[in-house]
Amino acid sequence: MREVQRALTLAALAAMGAATIGQAADALPSWNEGPAKRAIVDFVTKVTKEGGPDFVPPAERIATFDNDGTLWGEQPIYFQVAFALDRVKALAPEHPEWKDKEPYASLLKGDVKGALASGEKAIGEIMATAHSGMTTDEFDKIVKDWVATARHPRFKRPYTEVVYQPMLELLAYLRANGFKTFIVSGGGVEFMRAFAERVYGIPPEQVIGSSGKQSYELRAGKPVLVKLPALDFLDDKDGKPIGIQRVIGRRPIAAFGNSDGDLQMLQWTAAGAGPRFCLYVHHTDAEREWAYDRQSTIGRLDKGLDEAKTKGWTVVDMKRDWGVVFPFERP
Amino acid sequence: MREVQRALTLAALAAMGAATIGQAADALPSWNEGPAKRAIVDFVTKVTKEGGPDFVPPAERIATFDNDGTLWGEQPIYFQVAFALDRVKALAPEHPEWKDKEPYASLLKGDVKGALASGEKAIGEIMATAHSGMTTDEFDKIVKDWVATARHPRFKRPYTEVVYQPMLELLAYLRANGFKTFIVSGGGVEFMRAFAERVYGIPPEQVIGSSGKQSYELRAGKPVLVKLPALDFLDDKDGKPIGIQRVIGRRPIAAFGNSDGDLQMLQWTAAGAGPRFCLYVHHTDAEREWAYDRQSTIGRLDKGLDEAKTKGWTVVDMKRDWGVVFPFERP
Repeated sequence: MREVQRALTLAALAAMGAATIGQAADALPSWNEGPAKRAIVDFVTKVTKEGGPDFVPPAERIATFDNDGTLWGEQPIYFQVAFALDRVKALAPEHPEWKDKEPYASLLKGDVKGALASGEKAIGEIMATAHSGMTTDEFDKIVKDWVATARHPRFKRPYTEVVYQPMLELLAYLRANGFKTFIVSGGGVEFMRAFAERVYGIPPEQVIGSSGKQSYELRAGKPVLVKLPALDFLDDKDGKPIGIQRVIGRRPIAAFGNSDGDLQMLQWTAAGAGPRFCLYVHHTDAEREWAYDRQSTIGRLDKGLDEAKTKGWTVVDMKRDWGVVFPFERP
Repeated sequence: MREVQRALTLAALAAMGAATIGQAADALPSWNEGPAKRAIVDFVTKVTKEGGPDFVPPAERIATFDNDGTLWGEQPIYFQVAFALDRVKALAPEHPEWKDKEPYASLLKGDVKGALASGEKAIGEIMATAHSGMTTDEFDKIVKDWVATARHPRFKRPYTEVVYQPMLELLAYLRANGFKTFIVSGGGVEFMRAFAERVYGIPPEQVIGSSGKQSYELRAGKPVLVKLPALDFLDDKDGKPIGIQRVIGRRPIAAFGNSDGDLQMLQWTAAGAGPRFCLYVHHTDAEREWAYDRQSTIGRLDKGLDEAKTKGWTVVDMKRDWGVVFPFERP
């Protein structure tokens, strides 16, 4: 029924007239009045105004969103790394040899920092271990179980509640205005799909992410897809416009990110003809969330911050622009 | 406006009631009455019947279609190979060295058979030459120009008119019943996208195909994606369920093919829980089109034909089941 409801909603909205929708600023109640909110509403209003000079047909209203640090948090470690660490711990009883093998040994002693200290190679091995050796159906269940039980260390809530309320409102506002919203993230595509529809209203076929190789096998006559411990595609930096081209095949007119890893996606989006909208979420709120940018190892925003200034992209100052950060803060 | 129109249509159809739609058998006027047409209508009727035991929510009504030999022809050579041969001829003036280099030398002398005789390597080189060295935007224009001017050798019409009228009706019938239709083809994804929306009503983000590697570059400050002469993904056989998982992330409930290259897609589709529909187009009409199956080098249907019998999949006998093959035959 969801499709039909969506159809009825779209039809009702169409009947109301696009201008009315664009001006429905209370679709973004968690955004404080200011330049960021104004820029969003102005853009949506002009591209949906039929007969206007900036009108964009609905089929071309593609909006792409990074996930980590843009739709949900990414501190104190990427949530998918937290998943992988938990997964390794859960698998440890089947792997007695890990007691003497890094990075597992440190991790199993509770020394996460030590386990990750050897850098990308250690993280890569932990990620591969957590994301391969099972079928795609099994992996989906593993992630859903983790999401249901794991808690964010600071907020003591499921990771899927550590999502940005203003961005949830923005996703819904864009969709109500005929946009098709996609995730384009360095995160694993099958990891994100396990919750994206429920949490963001984004169906699996609109999630683009990093992925591993898979093999197709018949097990007792039943076909399965098995996840292999080899990276197939890294959806970060240059990979973002490439991933967009691979899966969507047309250029977004709006793109949303928070780090230098999103810069190429924003460049690619901005360089198309006609009206374009690019937005960076700048983490400036150490009190309600975190404050980090140019020096951070997670979600570094350095070149992107400079380019946003040069090109006039919208930069959200989290502290100033967001009245509410997380859904659980709402009165 | 197309999205809004689609929304209004869906809303109107929803108001009419799903059962009515399912029984609107004249949505398939080019299908002769018989077991194939009956099987299609029965399946659509039962999965759209709200409250029925086989009801499938619209979001899960994913239908995947092979392209070559299923939606459009593939004889006497794959149409994309015809494109590549034409492209090599168009590029020849810039490559005087091709006069002494196979497979180009034979091809440029008009000896296509000779050029392709050295097998997969020769075809691979011609395909790589035709599909790389330009930006994605340039390639899109090259294909659109070719589609506008090239003619099928037997039917003397644009290749995009050598499409199967009954399958066009089937695509529209499924979409009117809330299905999301995807192409899943061994053909090049960017080749197919250049006409899939206009010809099949399938937008670029619902086309899955083989693809080459790409690089992201800034040219005079403007970002471009450049097509490289290296295969990234082969969307055939095992690649089809893998491609479906990569892009759609959920299992189709209906799949349509014509060759052994589609077998894994049909197996994967059939093995899901709940109602499933698998269909093979069997080319049995030498008079109106072509007749080929177990021995053909193009579109071989051998193992698939056996498995269809064993598993009770629908096999379209083109000669018997299709009242009209091509749109241009219609009275």
